[in-house]
Amino acid sequence: MKRYALKIKYNGTNFCGWQIQDNLRTVQDELEKAIKIFTKQSIRVTASGRTDTGVHALNQVVHFDMEDMNEDFDLKRLCIALNGIMPDDVSVSNAYIVDKNFHSRFSAVLREYHYKIYNSPLRSPFMKYSAMWVNQPLNIQYISDSLKSIEGEHDFVSFCKKKSANENTIRKIIKTLVLQQDDEITLKIRGNAFLHNMIRILVGTIINMYVNNKNPNELMKILEKKDRNCAGPTAPPYGLYLADIEYPKDGIVIKAAYSGKL
Amino acid sequence: MKRYALKIKYNGTNFCGWQIQDNLRTVQDELEKAIKIFTKQSIRVTASGRTDTGVHALNQVVHFDMEDMNEDFDLKRLCIALNGIMPDDVSVSNAYIVDKNFHSRFSAVLREYHYKIYNSPLRSPFMKYSAMWVNQPLNIQYISDSLKSIEGEHDFVSFCKKKSANENTIRKIIKTLVLQQDDEITLKIRGNAFLHNMIRILVGTIINMYVNNKNPNELMKILEKKDRNCAGPTAPPYGLYLADIEYPKDGIVIKAAYSGKL
Repeated sequence: MKRYALKIKYNGTNFCGWQIQDNLRTVQDELEKAIKIFTKQSIRVTASGRTDTGVHALNQVVHFDMEDMNEDFDLKRLCIALNGIMPDDVSVSNAYIVDKNFHSRFSAVLREYHYKIYNSPLRSPFMKYSAMWVNQPLNIQYISDSLKSIEGEHDFVSFCKKKSANENTIRKIIKTLVLQQDDEITLKIRGNAFLHNMIRILVGTIINMYVNNKNPNELMKILEKKDRNCAGPTAPPYGLYLADIEYPKDGIVIKAAYSGKL
Repeated sequence: MKRYALKIKYNGTNFCGWQIQDNLRTVQDELEKAIKIFTKQSIRVTASGRTDTGVHALNQVVHFDMEDMNEDFDLKRLCIALNGIMPDDVSVSNAYIVDKNFHSRFSAVLREYHYKIYNSPLRSPFMKYSAMWVNQPLNIQYISDSLKSIEGEHDFVSFCKKKSANENTIRKIIKTLVLQQDDEITLKIRGNAFLHNMIRILVGTIINMYVNNKNPNELMKILEKKDRNCAGPTAPPYGLYLADIEYPKDGIVIKAAYSGKL
């Protein structure tokens, strides 16, 4: 029995999110079905975190334990076979044999998400399910200033979908970056972890603040209110990309790796 | 009666090309249906050129003649209304009232096409219908050198789908440019006009030459053979984008313009 990890990408448009649900098309279900076809083992996989319906992943990390395979088996074959079995909107880019203590979720020390905005007066025939369309001209300095103002460790409960009574809502935003290329604005946000819908509520709130001529520092005031009702609307899921997960370099022994070369 | 021109964009994935065909979904049909709903006039539109099934347009130009509308009518309303009526995969970005002599196809002096290649060992869940996937590493200097070698006026019959006996196959490639961003390679080709499938056959031939270790100058030799059978395969339609059409600045009097601002 060994522990494996995979890096996977998926286009969330036609998935009802990551997690298996009865009678719904999910990424976890497609991956587990493909692993079963290739290995003949029924294996449960665990991701670094769930993604909601419509949310994409450039790099999602999953792990699972698997009985030893025959001697023809290697990580490259695993990748190629899973890509051959899985549908076009999900793919495996890397495979690893990891230490038994590695956990895709609990070992993760940093997550990076991207949020893409298509900022143009007229809708794009190409971006309907890959970015949020905002037809009023935005200012990336404003977006950048407001995001920078909330970097650091805070209680982000104002930007959380729903608070369980005893849930810890302290998170740390480590770095934010806003880029523009033609009509596309991309917000990049790195943090130790994120609350449910935190990035989508942050994006919806900042856009709401901008079109209502609020000061960028307003975002910190909303944070300090610790009340979801003070924040703005939740931005749509199809602009959100899980971009990267980082693990401590020394904490996890990677015993073998396949980095996606043919 | 006035002559109008529109700049339109479309995602070719779910269209059977530009031109109206019975019982098939085409861009021309969607546009003419929308114009009819808005103006109550049955109007035939003419494009700068047809595009095949799966081919995209960042800027396609069409023209048509229309009876004078009521006094509320203006170009901005025309754009907004057509975008409101048409489906998500086609949009109008600009509208013009042009001279009676303007013709979207015959007045055009320059066309620019882009061809997008996704160059990565593993397939992308995001690019299946927006780029050609090539899993062997390509060299953009090689692609650039081979394209540069055929710039100028030549008989491009080697790179034409099918030659009618009396068709003129002389065309002029004015400028070529090859760009790379991460895994995406974009070929930009400007010319006075292009033969049917010319760009797709050029792309398919260059990739074929590269993977078979041919010299980039081989492309000129294939051109000189004047034989389609000497060229390579036709690259797939979904990597191709009609990017721009240019008209002589003095030759066409634009009487009014709406440039897509709200």
